[in-house]
Amino acid sequence: MTIKNRKVYGSLSSPATLKVLACLFEHDIDFEFVHVDLESGQDKQQPFLAMNPFGRVPVFDDGDIKRFESRAIIRSVAHEYGKKGEQLVYWEARKQAIVANWIDVEDHKFEPPALRLINNPSKGFTSDQSVVAEAELGKVLDVYETRLSKFKYLASDDYTVADLVHLPNLEALLGNSYTKQHLFESRPHLSAWCFDILARPAWTKVLEMQKKAQPSSA
Amino acid sequence: MTIKNRKVYGSLSSPATLKVLACLFEHDIDFEFVHVDLESGQDKQQPFLAMNPFGRVPVFDDGDIKRFESRAIIRSVAHEYGKKGEQLVYWEARKQAIVANWIDVEDHKFEPPALRLINNPSKGFTSDQSVVAEAELGKVLDVYETRLSKFKYLASDDYTVADLVHLPNLEALLGNSYTKQHLFESRPHLSAWCFDILARPAWTKVLEMQKKAQPSSA
Ligand SMILES: N[C@@H](CCC(=O)N[C@@H](CS)C(=O)NCC(=O)O)C(=O)O
Ligand SMILES: N[C@@H](CCC(=O)N[C@@H](CS)C(=O)NCC(=O)O)C(=O)O
Repeated sequence: MTIKNRKVYGSLSSPATLKVLACLFEHDIDFEFVHVDLESGQDKQQPFLAMNPFGRVPVFDDGDIKRFESRAIIRSVAHEYGKKGEQLVYWEARKQAIVANWIDVEDHKFEPPALRLINNPSKGFTSDQSVVAEAELGKVLDVYETRLSKFKYLASDDYTVADLVHLPNLEALLGNSYTKQHLFESRPHLSAWCFDILARPAWTKVLEMQKKAQPSSA
Repeated sequence: MTIKNRKVYGSLSSPATLKVLACLFEHDIDFEFVHVDLESGQDKQQPFLAMNPFGRVPVFDDGDIKRFESRAIIRSVAHEYGKKGEQLVYWEARKQAIVANWIDVEDHKFEPPALRLINNPSKGFTSDQSVVAEAELGKVLDVYETRLSKFKYLASDDYTVADLVHLPNLEALLGNSYTKQHLFESRPHLSAWCFDILARPAWTKVLEMQKKAQPSSA
């Protein structure tokens, strides 16, 4: 596919950026990746602030409009570029509603305790904060286990962006032997779902991008 | 409009419920409101948990599917019931993207400090926690002021659900003389926007519903 001037401004250490990249690869969309150096605070200065006044990555510039908030970008990319029969978001409002429902679950229920666990490894998983986060995430994953015993994916029997938004944090949780054992091994439907979605070629491309960039711009 | 069996399960003291009600009134959708008693923990028991396993209001049952997460409900209701020329969400993906962008800003940037301020009045606005929340919200409202000096509404020059989701918390912040003075009076575009959107007939209907229900089921 040849392209206009699509750009993703972000960081390969940012889960929100990785979600957007996975979505673009799923849709075979060409784009240029522009590394934003969070360490030196590039995201808190001009010209970045003119694209996102809140100073957060990622920003998606599709050559027409600039947008931020990863889930908003993902939803609309899937809406715009989905092909009949392989849409990652449904065009029909009621089915789209269920996808939206589970994107918001990832946003409000899954990601907050997941990030607290992922960002806390140096303090060890026995610190008070981690124990609380693990218990909180465990309850959420119980709901997922039940849901995934009824449907193949979160929103339905199709893979959708509601699944996709979980990828970066699942990769991190399963890449750590403690969280893998404590949160996933006793939940078979959840584990099968992770195994399935983490094997998507689009996600492999994201991981390859990350590997190539390390350590200079990750 | 005659109806199938639409129901909103919620509480009139819940901002998330009030947002959904405003959206249904905007679209002239008939529904039955089913009060869920949060004080006695009805939302944490069956049969409520079968509708939302996370135990939170509101739940929207449109006679076909049950969904939760207020913003997901609102987005899809606007998508399904919008009329050409008066849509509260755009059907065109790129325009919808901007609405989604600003819904997520409300979710991630506006509501968290707003709720911390609103739910903290007994401790007074000079408590440490409130001072921090006020400063954080002030920065967000600076971004809004700039945005609203360029567009009549957050997503564009049309009223959309990105504006609507702010209503309950704006009502509370402007109903308090301290926050009204400290956060709104020095921001003229923000104030004009609030004045405009809080006067929507759909929002008046929500406030009337609340008034009628008090004190028994609010
Ligand atoms: N809700 C936003 C979150 C964006 C966000 O927090 N990005 C982080 C990286 S994942 C960031 O920009 N961090 C830099 C900073 O906070 O200075 C989204 O989903 O896009
Ligand atoms: N993100 C959810 C939030 C739902 C939520 O937190 N609801 C509150 C009332 S606004 C609730 O159910 N509280 C009862 C409880 O936490 O027990 C949404 O937007 O629907």
